[in-house]
Amino acid sequence: MAPSSKLKTPAQINNMDYEEFIDVFGNVIEHCSLCAAAVWRYRPFKDVKYLHEEICKFVDQLPPAGGEGILRSHPDLAGRAASEGLLTKESNQEQRAAGLSDLTQEERKQLAQMNDMYRSKFGFPFVICARKNKKDVILEGLRTRLNNSQEAELQKGLTEVKKICYLRLLDLVEHDGIESRL
Amino acid sequence: MAPSSKLKTPAQINNMDYEEFIDVFGNVIEHCSLCAAAVWRYRPFKDVKYLHEEICKFVDQLPPAGGEGILRSHPDLAGRAASEGLLTKESNQEQRAAGLSDLTQEERKQLAQMNDMYRSKFGFPFVICARKNKKDVILEGLRTRLNNSQEAELQKGLTEVKKICYLRLLDLVEHDGIESRL
Repeated sequence: MAPSSKLKTPAQINNMDYEEFIDVFGNVIEHCSLCAAAVWRYRPFKDVKYLHEEICKFVDQLPPAGGEGILRSHPDLAGRAASEGLLTKESNQEQRAAGLSDLTQEERKQLAQMNDMYRSKFGFPFVICARKNKKDVILEGLRTRLNNSQEAELQKGLTEVKKICYLRLLDLVEHDGIESRL
Repeated sequence: MAPSSKLKTPAQINNMDYEEFIDVFGNVIEHCSLCAAAVWRYRPFKDVKYLHEEICKFVDQLPPAGGEGILRSHPDLAGRAASEGLLTKESNQEQRAAGLSDLTQEERKQLAQMNDMYRSKFGFPFVICARKNKKDVILEGLRTRLNNSQEAELQKGLTEVKKICYLRLLDLVEHDGIESRL
């Protein structure tokens, strides 16, 4: 989504000071700048894939409460934050790309009901990589995933978080057609 | 620091929805709202001490990169963020309380030099509970702690983070003279 002229090269990233690094990468995991702060120790980053892998490793090392905390830091799809204009710019773009800003009244109602059921069953919101899915697939995925166990949904949600992170990184860092690995 | 009329009771905290909880407690660990997001699962909180303990347990369960990330999320004392007015309101109050907004030119220079030495030796900034110390003690503490090992300073820094967190919680939650446990 970012214009390619703005993409950072690995050399530019490795020359950033800490504050700049956090300004640029602090929200690749939604509202969890601690993840970028943690991987700062793994510089130099040879490419975007390596940076992504270090972030994923950190997420995987968190205790379960931390994984849940990451999921809780995500907004509901087409939820209150969206309708009140309180989404981060990344979430806003992603939800629009999936067609979630363009739901029928019936779809919006269904989504809200299932979001509530999901959150009350699992203790965190439903998270899916919106840019890799369209609204019909998202609604169907939510319906299906409501049947899973808490443990399975914690893992599934974090897998989606890592995909979201990867796409956000590709919007920020120079790369060579590696999006297809998702 | 917060007027006592604004202090939340445990019952009020346990009745908060998630967004309100994060609005209120998201910065008790500086710039690391993930910590509050993680402990949401441990409601109900019977008192401020219990809430603090759950946050400390979460911090202790983080891998070393996460502990370092927490320290990196703290500003330098009397550093660039302070001089540019970019501190969080909590940090600003704490640094003022320690007399760090009122350094002589010589003290400011010494502190900046030692902050730089500390950060380049350890890979994270010097963190101390400013409200529990005055500027002379802070300068002396920094000088001494520069001699420690990286592992010792990671633990020492996180111990200070937990004290800062406790005092921030006491500014937010009703309590009965338990500040002395620090």
